[in-house]
Amino acid sequence: MEQTNITAITEKDSKEKTKGLPVIDCDLHEAFTDIKVLFPYLDEQWREYIVPGSWRPSGLPYGRLTPGGYAMVDAWPANGTIAGSDYSLFKKQLLDKYNVKKGILTGIFWPSDSNTQPEFKNALSTAYNDWQSDNWLKKDKRLLGSIHVNCHDPIAAAEEIDRAANNPQMIQVMISVIPEALGKTFYHPIYEAAERNNLPIGFHLGSAITTVLGNTPYFTEWYTLRNQNYQSIMTNMIVHGVFEKFPKLKVMLIEGGFSWVVPLMWRLDATFRTFRREVPWLKRLPSEYIRDHFKFTTQPMDDPDPKHLIQMIEMLGPEMLCFASDYPHWDFDDPYRAFPTIMPKEWKQRILYDNARDFYGLEDMED
Amino acid sequence: MEQTNITAITEKDSKEKTKGLPVIDCDLHEAFTDIKVLFPYLDEQWREYIVPGSWRPSGLPYGRLTPGGYAMVDAWPANGTIAGSDYSLFKKQLLDKYNVKKGILTGIFWPSDSNTQPEFKNALSTAYNDWQSDNWLKKDKRLLGSIHVNCHDPIAAAEEIDRAANNPQMIQVMISVIPEALGKTFYHPIYEAAERNNLPIGFHLGSAITTVLGNTPYFTEWYTLRNQNYQSIMTNMIVHGVFEKFPKLKVMLIEGGFSWVVPLMWRLDATFRTFRREVPWLKRLPSEYIRDHFKFTTQPMDDPDPKHLIQMIEMLGPEMLCFASDYPHWDFDDPYRAFPTIMPKEWKQRILYDNARDFYGLEDMED
Repeated sequence: MEQTNITAITEKDSKEKTKGLPVIDCDLHEAFTDIKVLFPYLDEQWREYIVPGSWRPSGLPYGRLTPGGYAMVDAWPANGTIAGSDYSLFKKQLLDKYNVKKGILTGIFWPSDSNTQPEFKNALSTAYNDWQSDNWLKKDKRLLGSIHVNCHDPIAAAEEIDRAANNPQMIQVMISVIPEALGKTFYHPIYEAAERNNLPIGFHLGSAITTVLGNTPYFTEWYTLRNQNYQSIMTNMIVHGVFEKFPKLKVMLIEGGFSWVVPLMWRLDATFRTFRREVPWLKRLPSEYIRDHFKFTTQPMDDPDPKHLIQMIEMLGPEMLCFASDYPHWDFDDPYRAFPTIMPKEWKQRILYDNARDFYGLEDMED
Repeated sequence: MEQTNITAITEKDSKEKTKGLPVIDCDLHEAFTDIKVLFPYLDEQWREYIVPGSWRPSGLPYGRLTPGGYAMVDAWPANGTIAGSDYSLFKKQLLDKYNVKKGILTGIFWPSDSNTQPEFKNALSTAYNDWQSDNWLKKDKRLLGSIHVNCHDPIAAAEEIDRAANNPQMIQVMISVIPEALGKTFYHPIYEAAERNNLPIGFHLGSAITTVLGNTPYFTEWYTLRNQNYQSIMTNMIVHGVFEKFPKLKVMLIEGGFSWVVPLMWRLDATFRTFRREVPWLKRLPSEYIRDHFKFTTQPMDDPDPKHLIQMIEMLGPEMLCFASDYPHWDFDDPYRAFPTIMPKEWKQRILYDNARDFYGLEDMED
C-alpha cells in the first residue's frame, strides 16, 4: 500500500498556512426535533408504539458537565429545539465557515440501539434513512448520508442496505457499535451487502457500548475507555477472518480517536506470530488487515506534547486518519485548529481531505 | 518526580554490552505439584473440600498451541510434574543463569479466582502464603514473596496482609485481577492494609479477567486484549480517588505490557481537563497519579520497529518499567534479549534492576 514519505516533509511545509484547506468532515450529527417527524415514513402499526409514556429512544445515563451539555453552547438553535436539528445553523457554523467540500451525516438517533422489538427497529431504520434523504441530503449536495441498519437482524439489515444504496448520496452503512462478537458469521450478511454495494461500514460509538467494568458510574471513565469497544470489535473481525471472506470490505471507526491503535497492532501481531495455528484462515499479519481495511477518524483529538503526537501518527501512518469534527457536540474539533502547528501541511491536507476522498471514493462527486 | 535525562544518553551507551547486568525479575511463577501440599496449612474443615471430583482451582478454557503448552518446553521437570514446581530448575534456568539478584514470586494458584465459598478462599490464601514461605522463600534469599489475598473479602484480606507481612521476604500484596470497580470503597481495606505495611499492590492478570466481549473463543483475541482489564482498573482506581485517600499506595501492573499506557494517559488527561468538576476530589492530572503510583512490568514485550519501541518508552518514561521474565511460561522474556539492541544501556540497567529496587525498597536487602 502507499506509504507517506515522511522524510520528504520539510520544516517549511509545517509552517505554511493551513486555514482554508478543503475539508471532508466524516462525523456530523444531524438530529430531529421530535421522533414524530418519522411518522410519514412509518406504517400505522409502528406509529402506535410512539406514544407519550411508552417506548422512547435509548440514551446515555450520564449528565455532562459542560456549558452546553451534550452540544456546544452556540450550536443550540434559538427556537429552543435540539442542537443539530437546524440545517441553517449546520450551514453557517460548519459547511460555509470551513471549506467543507463534503460532510458525512452519521445521525444521533440509532434505531439499532433501542431495546425494542427487532421488527420495530427495522422499520425505524428504513424510516430514518428516508427522512434523512428527504430532509438533509436533498437540501445540500455537500451532505452525504449513512444507511442506518438494525445490526441485530443482519438479513433485514442487508435488505435495507440494498434498498437505500440506490441514493448515490448514501456513502456508507452505519452501525452503532454493540459489544458483541461482530466478526461472527451471524453478522456476515451485513458485510456481504456492504461489499456488494461498494459501501464501507461506518461504526460509531453509541449508547449500547460498554467497558470491561460495564457502564461505569462516572462519565470521565466511560468516555475515556470507550475505545475498548473498537479494540475488541476490530480484533474480533480480524480473528474471525471477515477480511479474507470479504476482501473488498472497508471499515471506518468513528469518534474513537486513534492513538490506541498502535499498541493494539503491535500486540496483535506479536500474538499472531505465536498462535497463527489457532487462526489458520488468516493469511497475513493482523496489522496488514488493519492497514488495508480500516481508517480512523481523528476526533476526539489527543493533546499530549505535539512531538509525541506526531511520532504516534507516524507510527500509525497519516494515511490511516480522516478528519471528523463531531459537530455540533461538546467535543467538537475545529478542522484548522485540531492539529498541532508542527504537523506537516501535507499530512493535514491528507487527513482533512485526501484520505476520506479516497476511502469513500468521492473523486467523481461534484463539489 | 525524577525524570530520565534522555538527551544525555549517547549512542556509545547503546552499543555497550548488556549481558550480565544485574536483574530483578518481577514475575516468577512458582507452582505446586498437587494442591494437597496445602493440607498441612489447612484446617480439617477446608481439607474436606479438596477431594477428587469435587471443587478444583479455576483455570483458563484455552488450549495453547505452543510446543510446551502453558510453559516453555524445557521448563517441564523430568519427573513429569508441573512446570514451575521444581526449585532446582528455577535455580538453574533462571536465578543462576542470569545475574538475578532478586526474583519475585507471584504464584499461579490464585485463591481469589476460585468460584467457591469466601471463607474457603480466605483459608486457601493463608495456607498458600505459608506454603510459599516454607517451600520457596526459605530455600533462597534471592526469592521474594507475594502475599496472596482473597480480594472478594477485603476485611479478611487486610488481616492476612497484617499477618503475612511479618516475613520480611514478603514484599507485595498479590491480587489476581477481577473485572470489578476496584476503586470502590468496598476494596479500600486492602489498600489501607497495604499502605500500613508499606507494601505495594501487585496486580496480575489471571483466570477471572475478561474483555469487552467477554471471554472470547479464541486465545489469540483474549491474550491480545487482556490489558483492557488494566486500562479499566487503573482508570477506576484513579477516578475514585484511591490515591488521594492512600497517598503512599503503590501499584505494580504485572504481565500486561506497557505500550497501551501512553494513549490511555493522553485520553484520561484530556477527559479530565473537561470533566474535572465530575471528580473534584482529584487534585492532579490522572497521568500524574499514574506516574507517581504505578509501575508496569515489561513482559510480554512488544516487538515493532525498534525505533518505534524506543519512542514509546520515551513517551512513557523508562523509569515506569520493571523487567519481568514470566518464567517458566511459554511467553518467557530473556532479560538480555528482550530489549532492542539500540536501547541505551542506561535504560536497560534501570529497567532490569534499578526501578524495581527503588519501587520495592530493596536497597537494604542483602544480595
